[in-house]
Amino acid sequence: MLKSKHTTFFDCGLDYQAADIVIFGAPFDSTTSFRPGTRMAAATMRLESFGLETYSPDLDLDLADYNICDAGDLELPFGNSEQALDLIAEQVSQIAADHKIPLMIGGEHLVSLGAIRALHLKYPDLAIIHFDAHTDLREAYLGQSLSHASVMRLAWQLLGDGRIWQFGIRSGERHEFEFAAKHTHLCANNFDDLALAIAQNQNRPIYLSIDLDILDPSFFPGTGTPEAGGVCVHSLFAALKDLSKLNIIGCDINELAPNYDLSGASTAVANKVLRELLLNLSKNKED
Amino acid sequence: MLKSKHTTFFDCGLDYQAADIVIFGAPFDSTTSFRPGTRMAAATMRLESFGLETYSPDLDLDLADYNICDAGDLELPFGNSEQALDLIAEQVSQIAADHKIPLMIGGEHLVSLGAIRALHLKYPDLAIIHFDAHTDLREAYLGQSLSHASVMRLAWQLLGDGRIWQFGIRSGERHEFEFAAKHTHLCANNFDDLALAIAQNQNRPIYLSIDLDILDPSFFPGTGTPEAGGVCVHSLFAALKDLSKLNIIGCDINELAPNYDLSGASTAVANKVLRELLLNLSKNKED
Amino acid sequence: MLKSKHTTFFDCGLDYQAADIVIFGAPFDSTTSFRPGTRMAAATMRLESFGLETYSPDLDLDLADYNICDAGDLELPFGNSEQALDLIAEQVSQIAADHKIPLMIGGEHLVSLGAIRALHLKYPDLAIIHFDAHTDLREAYLGQSLSHASVMRLAWQLLGDGRIWQFGIRSGERHEFEFAAKHTHLCANNFDDLALAIAQNQNRPIYLSIDLDILDPSFFPGTGTPEAGGVCVHSLFAALKDLSKLNIIGCDINELAPNYDLSGASTAVANKVLRELLLNLSKNKED
Amino acid sequence: MLKSKHTTFFDCGLDYQAADIVIFGAPFDSTTSFRPGTRMAAATMRLESFGLETYSPDLDLDLADYNICDAGDLELPFGNSEQALDLIAEQVSQIAADHKIPLMIGGEHLVSLGAIRALHLKYPDLAIIHFDAHTDLREAYLGQSLSHASVMRLAWQLLGDGRIWQFGIRSGERHEFEFAAKHTHLCANNFDDLALAIAQNQNRPIYLSIDLDILDPSFFPGTGTPEAGGVCVHSLFAALKDLSKLNIIGCDINELAPNYDLSGASTAVANKVLRELLLNLSKNKED
Amino acid sequence: MLKSKHTTFFDCGLDYQAADIVIFGAPFDSTTSFRPGTRMAAATMRLESFGLETYSPDLDLDLADYNICDAGDLELPFGNSEQALDLIAEQVSQIAADHKIPLMIGGEHLVSLGAIRALHLKYPDLAIIHFDAHTDLREAYLGQSLSHASVMRLAWQLLGDGRIWQFGIRSGERHEFEFAAKHTHLCANNFDDLALAIAQNQNRPIYLSIDLDILDPSFFPGTGTPEAGGVCVHSLFAALKDLSKLNIIGCDINELAPNYDLSGASTAVANKVLRELLLNLSKNKED
Amino acid sequence: MLKSKHTTFFDCGLDYQAADIVIFGAPFDSTTSFRPGTRMAAATMRLESFGLETYSPDLDLDLADYNICDAGDLELPFGNSEQALDLIAEQVSQIAADHKIPLMIGGEHLVSLGAIRALHLKYPDLAIIHFDAHTDLREAYLGQSLSHASVMRLAWQLLGDGRIWQFGIRSGERHEFEFAAKHTHLCANNFDDLALAIAQNQNRPIYLSIDLDILDPSFFPGTGTPEAGGVCVHSLFAALKDLSKLNIIGCDINELAPNYDLSGASTAVANKVLRELLLNLSKNKED
Repeated sequence: MLKSKHTTFFDCGLDYQAADIVIFGAPFDSTTSFRPGTRMAAATMRLESFGLETYSPDLDLDLADYNICDAGDLELPFGNSEQALDLIAEQVSQIAADHKIPLMIGGEHLVSLGAIRALHLKYPDLAIIHFDAHTDLREAYLGQSLSHASVMRLAWQLLGDGRIWQFGIRSGERHEFEFAAKHTHLCANNFDDLALAIAQNQNRPIYLSIDLDILDPSFFPGTGTPEAGGVCVHSLFAALKDLSKLNIIGCDINELAPNYDLSGASTAVANKVLRELLLNLSKNKED
Repeated sequence: MLKSKHTTFFDCGLDYQAADIVIFGAPFDSTTSFRPGTRMAAATMRLESFGLETYSPDLDLDLADYNICDAGDLELPFGNSEQALDLIAEQVSQIAADHKIPLMIGGEHLVSLGAIRALHLKYPDLAIIHFDAHTDLREAYLGQSLSHASVMRLAWQLLGDGRIWQFGIRSGERHEFEFAAKHTHLCANNFDDLALAIAQNQNRPIYLSIDLDILDPSFFPGTGTPEAGGVCVHSLFAALKDLSKLNIIGCDINELAPNYDLSGASTAVANKVLRELLLNLSKNKED
Repeated sequence: MLKSKHTTFFDCGLDYQAADIVIFGAPFDSTTSFRPGTRMAAATMRLESFGLETYSPDLDLDLADYNICDAGDLELPFGNSEQALDLIAEQVSQIAADHKIPLMIGGEHLVSLGAIRALHLKYPDLAIIHFDAHTDLREAYLGQSLSHASVMRLAWQLLGDGRIWQFGIRSGERHEFEFAAKHTHLCANNFDDLALAIAQNQNRPIYLSIDLDILDPSFFPGTGTPEAGGVCVHSLFAALKDLSKLNIIGCDINELAPNYDLSGASTAVANKVLRELLLNLSKNKED
Repeated sequence: MLKSKHTTFFDCGLDYQAADIVIFGAPFDSTTSFRPGTRMAAATMRLESFGLETYSPDLDLDLADYNICDAGDLELPFGNSEQALDLIAEQVSQIAADHKIPLMIGGEHLVSLGAIRALHLKYPDLAIIHFDAHTDLREAYLGQSLSHASVMRLAWQLLGDGRIWQFGIRSGERHEFEFAAKHTHLCANNFDDLALAIAQNQNRPIYLSIDLDILDPSFFPGTGTPEAGGVCVHSLFAALKDLSKLNIIGCDINELAPNYDLSGASTAVANKVLRELLLNLSKNKED
Repeated sequence: MLKSKHTTFFDCGLDYQAADIVIFGAPFDSTTSFRPGTRMAAATMRLESFGLETYSPDLDLDLADYNICDAGDLELPFGNSEQALDLIAEQVSQIAADHKIPLMIGGEHLVSLGAIRALHLKYPDLAIIHFDAHTDLREAYLGQSLSHASVMRLAWQLLGDGRIWQFGIRSGERHEFEFAAKHTHLCANNFDDLALAIAQNQNRPIYLSIDLDILDPSFFPGTGTPEAGGVCVHSLFAALKDLSKLNIIGCDINELAPNYDLSGASTAVANKVLRELLLNLSKNKED
Repeated sequence: MLKSKHTTFFDCGLDYQAADIVIFGAPFDSTTSFRPGTRMAAATMRLESFGLETYSPDLDLDLADYNICDAGDLELPFGNSEQALDLIAEQVSQIAADHKIPLMIGGEHLVSLGAIRALHLKYPDLAIIHFDAHTDLREAYLGQSLSHASVMRLAWQLLGDGRIWQFGIRSGERHEFEFAAKHTHLCANNFDDLALAIAQNQNRPIYLSIDLDILDPSFFPGTGTPEAGGVCVHSLFAALKDLSKLNIIGCDINELAPNYDLSGASTAVANKVLRELLLNLSKNKED
């Protein structure tokens, strides 16, 4: 019996059957308008998760105590967004059908749409908690309706008014903010309204979509479109803790472009967000 | 008619005649004492401005609604500071003579002197708002009187006592702080005294000189001499908003050395400062 | 009159009417399978062309003596290959209709297909000289028929057998080499057969497509898929000189991903290839 | 007499006899578990100290007014931790025997153990102030008892219960936090308890060990294991000022891995910490 | 059944039983004297092997046709060379006992010693083909007998005179060259004597140890100690082809430090060396 | 007695009196037209010389056997070329007056002029061997007569026709090549005419000026203006060996910009050139 082994997120296991949460990568960035590179996120996070403990002193919980499976990465067709979304939807449907929580690591933000489509079929009353620097509410971007900049607009087409709660937003076109005023809950660039969002969604299945560029670039420079003026890591971790009160039935972490931050600090933050999210979800499932 | 086109700051136009504000680059860094590289700032900002929206949610204003011209870059003689300053002064004089606001993108901080010389001729009662980590008040630096570290000392020789208001300063030699105590308004390392500066300069023409290293290096690592302990982006944007109450007749943004921050976050901050500054100036002109 | 100005390739002009050759950028890399980034190529080359003389000692010719226009860059829809190809084809058709030579700077190699489609319409007997490390003869790649890895297969569908001459190839799948044996001239990994290609295509209109990864990565590391074992710069420049004997009616230079080579040497090589190609084309037109 | 000269930290002198404080480098990182590179810290800090003034406006003190010697770097055997610690201990013993304060620049955190062993021999009632993101209290790490992750556990074996005060800690395994609860003062992830630590150690000789990753990675990304959620530079400088009330008889600054932060901001912060520490120590000695 | 999967070298399988060759990583670099980083080699090569075809046009062989297992990486104790070597030896012994060829990806060159020790026990008449820029014949380095700079000296202690054939050597201390003249076959800095080495070792079990810095840094800059004047990639691939005539019973590829070459070209070369080596070994086993 | 020590080139000594060769750094790059950074060369080379042996297997000579002094670096005024040249000339005059060979590490190429001025005063029949990619024969550059691009033109003004032998040149403006045809020996882009140059300068004092960009960027990407098509390292080392037959009374190595090559390979080549040059000079002095 050899002692060598393959790398997984936080050294978590390969046993899909036993798992309560299933992590997988969705390495796709074909619609990225400015600087691509998020397709490297999952592989890099897995590799560098070695540098972070499985225990969270803040939560006093340890990943080693929970059943989490790392299912590897999807192989997605670059340049064909529709087909990539289908593959993601298929994967998420399967995981949800098996009564597990899918946790997808993007990729550009468009990948969320595949998961939202799949989960909306299963949970028609789905609501979305959306962390981001950008509204992502364009009708089209550079002529493309399927785009990272349109992902919440497309989600709105499925879910309808009032189902999307947006936090951290500080960038977009004027018409996007006007659209948000009518159709989504676009909260101030902080988490003050998070308690309200939690209160109003107690009985709903929730999809949590975290575009890591919600963080200020000082904490997270490794992304395609760094946007100054974001939230700090302390408030993001606090928000994740608060969210554990909701019934999160799927989630994603996206827009890490690891090669843009050679220090590795951005990948390390992404992994810490992943760890805290996994622990909050696991604890919730347990309760 | 071809559809291809050339890159400008925020895709703004090339029409000098119609413009209220004229942006140009001054790629010069020959006196940089530590790590040169600011000569790449204007070209890199222009290229990467594609990644930032023209609309500011904070100001609810859009660059697309104003007349701004990108006049390209000056070609400056490296190693000859005096001649470089003459070329800058000539450019600024022309723009000011045409009743437009010159907005120069440095380069090292010495470039400001060219603009200040030109504008002081036109506006003898000129005052300066100076954002910086460093006093820039040396009499000479490594034997050179024309140096980035002396630029405010040289401006003082033109303008005299009490005309220079300095914010964010946290570095310098002891004698520079002693000089400041007598001859300039060296405010604490924050913007608490900005209201006072505004109150006392209501009727004066103001030159605004922004050395971006006023920001803490966490927000702006891409500069030759990163100096810990600076202000945060939130307070800088707030200060720019406050300054719109003044009669700013010229300004510059300098000391971005884009190659020192491969994440692009520093260039992105510089562009956001440029956008907010342009919008505040435009709105002011409109009022 | 201001002295500042905008950057063009080698400071060449903006006058489309007078030009014999028209350069434009096609910043597209959505189908890139491994590491994207070529969309930055044209803008970076333009910026860094300042570092290279317009005179070629080898050819004893100077760009300043010819009429070349830099038409800027196309704005292409990321994630929609078909539409991007249409925009490229439209641009190339226009330039060709105006009796000028289009010289496109990619982008990933797929962009060549847009140009080839346009020029094949005008020149039904078109042949292609293809410099590359990879065969680019896949029927589909990750399920996509429109892909950088299929570009010469797609060109073959238009042009038919025996019209594509491939040089420098050292990578591909077995079936691609089998396909090449039947349908293209896949020459050895050197330029020994270039004289033959020239001899057999004296009377044909030629499209020259240069994937810069034909060069060994020691000379050109700044590309998405560096493939060891390529040709050296000396032999590439010699080949360009030889090709000036052909009737080149369009050409492209692609697959530079400038951010992967921080030294700038890859961008500098790309610019030198551009200069030598421009001079050879110009001289030919003159003769 | 030549005018050229060799680089030292802040241009300070080479005169060991006259010095009150002796700086030296300990370039060792063989037990680094994740990403090595701290061995470059001392040499890089020395080189880049040129970019920082010797005067501290905050303290109103200047390094030029004190006797500080830069003794260069030790040559340490990579891969043999025990022998490296012996060489460090020998160096520190000598400096302490000469009634000077040793200030060591690591290297990985394990180097502190060499200094602590030497100083504990001279000062049996030694206490430690420990700034860090990590507990460093493992009994062994990957089977090694001599490891950067065990350094405070090993120090505890020498000093016993209640002698180690830990600040900034936000990472570790569950058993480490349990150990700390019994045997060390593990304070909250801030400096609130620093006044208490100072009060209770007024009459003790203190070793100050600064793992710079106590800082949030936004301020200090250049380290092997960046851990989000750390203290800010303002509070660290304030803490250093407070500590000047203690009888610090030795100290170190470690875990800068300069190559991980190409902006140089991390090295610049390390140098500012060094400057402020030197000034506080010098002033204290003077009083 | 999910479609996502984990990354292996060239997508090869996980089935140890069926494999003829077993690849594993040995991420260890604690004795690296200059710039560490080779511990990242195996993980990075695995990740980036996606960018290289499994088919070799030069050999007309495809990895997909052979049974190769990727056994993942060993977890090695940093700072304890002896224990790391034991773990490597144990792994190699097991693989050899199962009649498979071990192919180890370093790590620094010292890791070879673990494999050589294990294989020398099984094959007392073992000889070594050693590709390297450096002699690696020091008796000790910085006081350590277990060091990357001593690995062939230590191998010689096991194997005795005349059993080590060294190619590409261009660096070392004078006494190392004197030692080589007496005890090893130190060939000229090329492969001229490779035919001789092959002829004289027809009936011996051979261990092949490839320190990739045998390549000139133009082809392989991503290593801790780049040494100008090395062989080119063409001659290295030719040498690998020639070596297939020998009975290679174990081998390693080491000294890639991927982070030192951000272009990825060094990792790509390492993967191409791995592919060609795997194909040559597989074909040989087949014959 | 402490064991720690300061870094010098190849650990050579500090004893000026005993030295036959004196190395010093001239960190100046104010006239660099494209990408500055050479001012970091001397400090970086010194630091990284640790990675290269003092013994040259090719020459069978060891630096440890000769008297070489590292005199540190000059402090030069950025932005004032004339004064910088004066300081360099003063340093070189002193070393030459003390019957030692000055070996200057640039800096940009302009620094050579300071040394040439000083040595021409002492040796009126001085000739120059000039290794470079560029002619450096402009009358002025961007309006500046004192420029890196004019250094050999300025040297010609001192020395007159036929005294400058140029090797490796492959870039310049047309008029520079025309000037060279009349006034210098501009040899082909190889070392074929080196024997002639040596034969014709047997009795002359020679200044050797090595702009490292004579090397192809594949070997030396770390420079401000990488120019494809240069010589290889093998031929450069051979040329240095041949030059040892001349009476070299001063020399320089310039244009390394270490930050442009993060792999360190360029700095390593520069150090190897330095080592071979030192050994050839030392041996010559000895004979």
